Amino acid sequence: MVAVAILAAGRGTRMKSELPKVLHSLGGRSLIERILQTALEIEPIRQIVIVGYQGKQVEAALQHIPNVEFVEQTQQLGTGHAVQQLLPHLEGFQGDLLVLNGDVPLLRPQTLKVLMESHKKHQNAVSLLTAHLPNPKGYGRVFCNDRNIIQQIVEDRDCSAAQKQNHRINAGIYCFNWPQLAKVLPQLQANNDQKEYYLTDACNLMQPVMAVDVEDYQEILGINDRKQLATAYDILQGRVKERWMAAGVTLIDPNSITIDDTVQLSTDIIIEPQTHLRGNTAIGSGSRIGPGSLIENSQIGENVTVVYSVITDSTVQAETKIGPYSHLRGNVNAGKNCRIGNFVELKNTTLGDRTNVAHLSYLGDATLGERVNIGAGTITANYDGVKKHQTKIGDRTKTGSNSVLVAPVKLGSDVTVAAGSTVTEDVPDDSLVIARSPQVVKPGWRLKTSED
Amino acid sequence: MVAVAILAAGRGTRMKSELPKVLHSLGGRSLIERILQTALEIEPIRQIVIVGYQGKQVEAALQHIPNVEFVEQTQQLGTGHAVQQLLPHLEGFQGDLLVLNGDVPLLRPQTLKVLMESHKKHQNAVSLLTAHLPNPKGYGRVFCNDRNIIQQIVEDRDCSAAQKQNHRINAGIYCFNWPQLAKVLPQLQANNDQKEYYLTDACNLMQPVMAVDVEDYQEILGINDRKQLATAYDILQGRVKERWMAAGVTLIDPNSITIDDTVQLSTDIIIEPQTHLRGNTAIGSGSRIGPGSLIENSQIGENVTVVYSVITDSTVQAETKIGPYSHLRGNVNAGKNCRIGNFVELKNTTLGDRTNVAHLSYLGDATLGERVNIGAGTITANYDGVKKHQTKIGDRTKTGSNSVLVAPVKLGSDVTVAAGSTVTEDVPDDSLVIARSPQVVKPGWRLKTSED
Amino acid sequence: MVAVAILAAGRGTRMKSELPKVLHSLGGRSLIERILQTALEIEPIRQIVIVGYQGKQVEAALQHIPNVEFVEQTQQLGTGHAVQQLLPHLEGFQGDLLVLNGDVPLLRPQTLKVLMESHKKHQNAVSLLTAHLPNPKGYGRVFCNDRNIIQQIVEDRDCSAAQKQNHRINAGIYCFNWPQLAKVLPQLQANNDQKEYYLTDACNLMQPVMAVDVEDYQEILGINDRKQLATAYDILQGRVKERWMAAGVTLIDPNSITIDDTVQLSTDIIIEPQTHLRGNTAIGSGSRIGPGSLIENSQIGENVTVVYSVITDSTVQAETKIGPYSHLRGNVNAGKNCRIGNFVELKNTTLGDRTNVAHLSYLGDATLGERVNIGAGTITANYDGVKKHQTKIGDRTKTGSNSVLVAPVKLGSDVTVAAGSTVTEDVPDDSLVIARSPQVVKPGWRLKTSED
Repeated sequence: MVAVAILAAGRGTRMKSELPKVLHSLGGRSLIERILQTALEIEPIRQIVIVGYQGKQVEAALQHIPNVEFVEQTQQLGTGHAVQQLLPHLEGFQGDLLVLNGDVPLLRPQTLKVLMESHKKHQNAVSLLTAHLPNPKGYGRVFCNDRNIIQQIVEDRDCSAAQKQNHRINAGIYCFNWPQLAKVLPQLQANNDQKEYYLTDACNLMQPVMAVDVEDYQEILGINDRKQLATAYDILQGRVKERWMAAGVTLIDPNSITIDDTVQLSTDIIIEPQTHLRGNTAIGSGSRIGPGSLIENSQIGENVTVVYSVITDSTVQAETKIGPYSHLRGNVNAGKNCRIGNFVELKNTTLGDRTNVAHLSYLGDATLGERVNIGAGTITANYDGVKKHQTKIGDRTKTGSNSVLVAPVKLGSDVTVAAGSTVTEDVPDDSLVIARSPQVVKPGWRLKTSED
Repeated sequence: MVAVAILAAGRGTRMKSELPKVLHSLGGRSLIERILQTALEIEPIRQIVIVGYQGKQVEAALQHIPNVEFVEQTQQLGTGHAVQQLLPHLEGFQGDLLVLNGDVPLLRPQTLKVLMESHKKHQNAVSLLTAHLPNPKGYGRVFCNDRNIIQQIVEDRDCSAAQKQNHRINAGIYCFNWPQLAKVLPQLQANNDQKEYYLTDACNLMQPVMAVDVEDYQEILGINDRKQLATAYDILQGRVKERWMAAGVTLIDPNSITIDDTVQLSTDIIIEPQTHLRGNTAIGSGSRIGPGSLIENSQIGENVTVVYSVITDSTVQAETKIGPYSHLRGNVNAGKNCRIGNFVELKNTTLGDRTNVAHLSYLGDATLGERVNIGAGTITANYDGVKKHQTKIGDRTKTGSNSVLVAPVKLGSDVTVAAGSTVTEDVPDDSLVIARSPQVVKPGWRLKTSED
Repeated sequence: MVAVAILAAGRGTRMKSELPKVLHSLGGRSLIERILQTALEIEPIRQIVIVGYQGKQVEAALQHIPNVEFVEQTQQLGTGHAVQQLLPHLEGFQGDLLVLNGDVPLLRPQTLKVLMESHKKHQNAVSLLTAHLPNPKGYGRVFCNDRNIIQQIVEDRDCSAAQKQNHRINAGIYCFNWPQLAKVLPQLQANNDQKEYYLTDACNLMQPVMAVDVEDYQEILGINDRKQLATAYDILQGRVKERWMAAGVTLIDPNSITIDDTVQLSTDIIIEPQTHLRGNTAIGSGSRIGPGSLIENSQIGENVTVVYSVITDSTVQAETKIGPYSHLRGNVNAGKNCRIGNFVELKNTTLGDRTNVAHLSYLGDATLGERVNIGAGTITANYDGVKKHQTKIGDRTKTGSNSVLVAPVKLGSDVTVAAGSTVTEDVPDDSLVIARSPQVVKPGWRLKTSED
């Protein structure tokens, strides 16, 4: 039985931001959301976020995650002080307390599981996550006996030259036996330079305290400034991209590609350079995406090609070819074997199978049948200045170049719209609709140039 | 007299792919095509690809390279077994056999030449390519005397700690005296853990076996998974980009640029970030390409600028300015000093010198003269729903905004097309053509908003 | 009192360029311009550029910087020879001469200040900038006593193995007491392999010569080829990006972003991948720029979003949303809360607040009021084939899809333009303007396909 507490009260001054540090985004999710979702994987019975700086904003940002409690730390007087705020909320709680930091977003669930298992197995008073850093400067060093029982934790500034050779550091992630911790928390003193209450001091009052090493030290890197945020993103991207390459996805120039860890890919996909896959996106086998494309919250079928295009909140079925320079947004459903081409924007529009919108078109709030051919420059005038209206187009209908379909309007099947026509009224099946002036030629006419 | 055999029978399980490993693409050419074209540079009298997994697919993919023989290895029982398949095909052959791997695409022709020269000069029974790897883990170590005669090849797993200090490894590339090899091949045994026939065992039965070091160890890196494929691409790109920088091409942020090794560049070109040059592309001196552009199989003249555009299978002459957001495809020929602009797609179209298509146009199957000015939004309606038709436009002709030219149609020289006109019939020289309705104003008219 | 001389006479053969080396661009400014502007920060009383190869071109390229003198070195006979050319120009000058290289663009002003201060404080005859290089190969090594007085400068090729262990090198940047230098300059001999006059030989004739170390050795890296140019750009970009991250700017994938050192950013900006900010650009707080965008010489307000777009020489006010695939150029002024969308090009155009141009439009030489809605495909026909003309559009006016506004033309406020209309004459306030043909339907009409 474990409760999780996440320290999220600090401003993060070095971020130089109006936003509290833990709300900065890392690959589509905030730092606090990442650590909270990681913590949920160990199935805690309570999850408590200790907020302070702009606490209401942090609370609001986590509303979509159920059963999160918020405890306010009005003054920021150190990690020990933060955990002291839990005393009234965890009164009588007999389980363990896992203490996490809201600005350490790369921690893996597996690492927490290993920590918790070791904690239970050895019946520790405290289990402390430790890491071996290549460059441990600034971190407290952890000294253990040969059973990983911690003898001493020495702050970096207090280390002797010999002690500095120890690269095993305190990662700041603790599992406490809560009843024991609850007893010692009131005894913490702030008799140090910073005048802060330290959680490590609580460790000194409890035993046994055991160190558990994290395998990949990058997991415990904290975010204090924008450069560390960029570094963390790089690490995260490295993880995601290695995983997909191992699973059978070709990344051409992986360094130029970003893939959110929420994205699902199939095998034998090729991702071209400078492509970004975000949010709740899935891509089917055999598809080739990029270069220069952004796909967000969209479902892409098999053998689809997307070149220099932006697709958001949409669905594209198999064999469809998109781009270059297409924009699908706001609930587009493109059927199989469609072609969506150059300088085409689709919004809230459904295309039947084998339908083409190949050049310079805007279709909004439209439903097209199968094998429709939308001529270059065709536009659905879906907005009358007040409201949006629907356009419906039947199977095999063809619109001429630069035609306008003034919605609400319904074109039947097998309709042909003459080039340059503005269609304002419904058109029955099997008809030609034309709305343009005859051609008049004035011979012997020359443009007057400035030299004339 | 040398025959080349390329081992290409494996599936490449770690690629996690439906495609046989050797058919995966690296910078526009498959792995097997790369090694085969490298091998051709030593002018072998026969080139044999040993295929197995989806051998027919491999064969089909190499049809465009003449005089390639395919030998099937129905079971994959090791490198020795693969070469045994050659026995009936090379019966009586008195030359040397160069054995290459289909998944080692970075090998340079020069390296093979050095190997072959050493082989001939020393009249070796076997010459074996070796490399000094920074991290030789997993590779068989090669132990030689001071004349590079191999004493022993020890598999990584069989190496003592001392032997592991030897970083000289077997690159898996061999030149054999074929008559001698043919004698020992039938004697190979599969008495090992893998139950495979090893080509190294043949070496043990022949002498002298000489090691020849490759200068750049990266040449012999094999491709077993998608990450290695990405690494090989990175190495290849590094080679290509260093070469062009040394030759007088400025790459702004080289890491973000990719250039196929089939591309030809002149001096004093500037390539901007996120630009990709592919296939049979050549670019003339003084041109500036990018950012964010893709040029494939196209010939670009001198002093051309291309910004955020895609050009494929086309020719662009000197001083022409393209982009941002242009798409030239399918046999476009743009003359000198043209301007092809924003949101313009050209397909199978010829532009005379000093002709402009600057905004929001689609021209397909069109031939334009010199100094033509295509107004914004002009479209050639080249497709009648059944066939494509031609549009011809004479010198100095100007089309108004949002005009449509319904093909087949011919506009003479010095024609002016009024804005908003749909032109359906041929227009003689020196004339104004107009096809639109007069303007009607209804005063005192106000859009009804929802508040009204 | 200091005069600055910059050596800029060489061709830079390894650049393989028609352009003199010092005129190659590094992040928007030429090498010579960079070092000259750095030198100006120490407020010299004279700034002299010693030109040779294509000296007139170098002179022309620096015309925009006031008070620069040019001295010609007709033959390139070494650094000593170059400085000898100053003798007639600095006759009687009693101050110091700072000698810089035109191909060392990364030098910081602060470094020159430190050099000059040390020079004055110690009343040196010569102060020489030195650096500790990780790889000093090819550089002359500097040997000093414990007060940094130089005992010896040994060229790399003349160094003993022991001397090569000294990584302190001559950076080629000198401050001389000019009267003393003027005396020894005529004594220089060219009795070396290169038959050149070396400035280091002058140092041997003067004393004391003091070494002053540069803190960051990257500052003194010279540019001799395109690869070094790329490396310098990378270093420069690293400096700029670190600075902005520290100041509160989030860079998502910093390696893919470039920011000229002339750009001004506020806090809490997010720069997405593959974004390039150039020239005299400033961006306000809360804005999100990219991915895939290029902004040059433009002022962007607060909370603006720009996605896959190009903006040059323009101003965008707060809360406006741009892209994907917009192009603003040539003096666009977009008001607050505008929406500029997909496939829209604006040139020399002003948009009032809350005005939308959302799809497939070209507006040139136009002035729009507030809350205007420009329908998809609307085009201002601003060019009559001879001249550009103005379009004026009043507040709350709405244009229908695919309408053309033939300039010069003025639309009042609250005008509605019907879809598909070509407007050629002024339209008063509160009116509907329509210029199109009625719709004619021909029933029972079927497109003849090739199968018919």
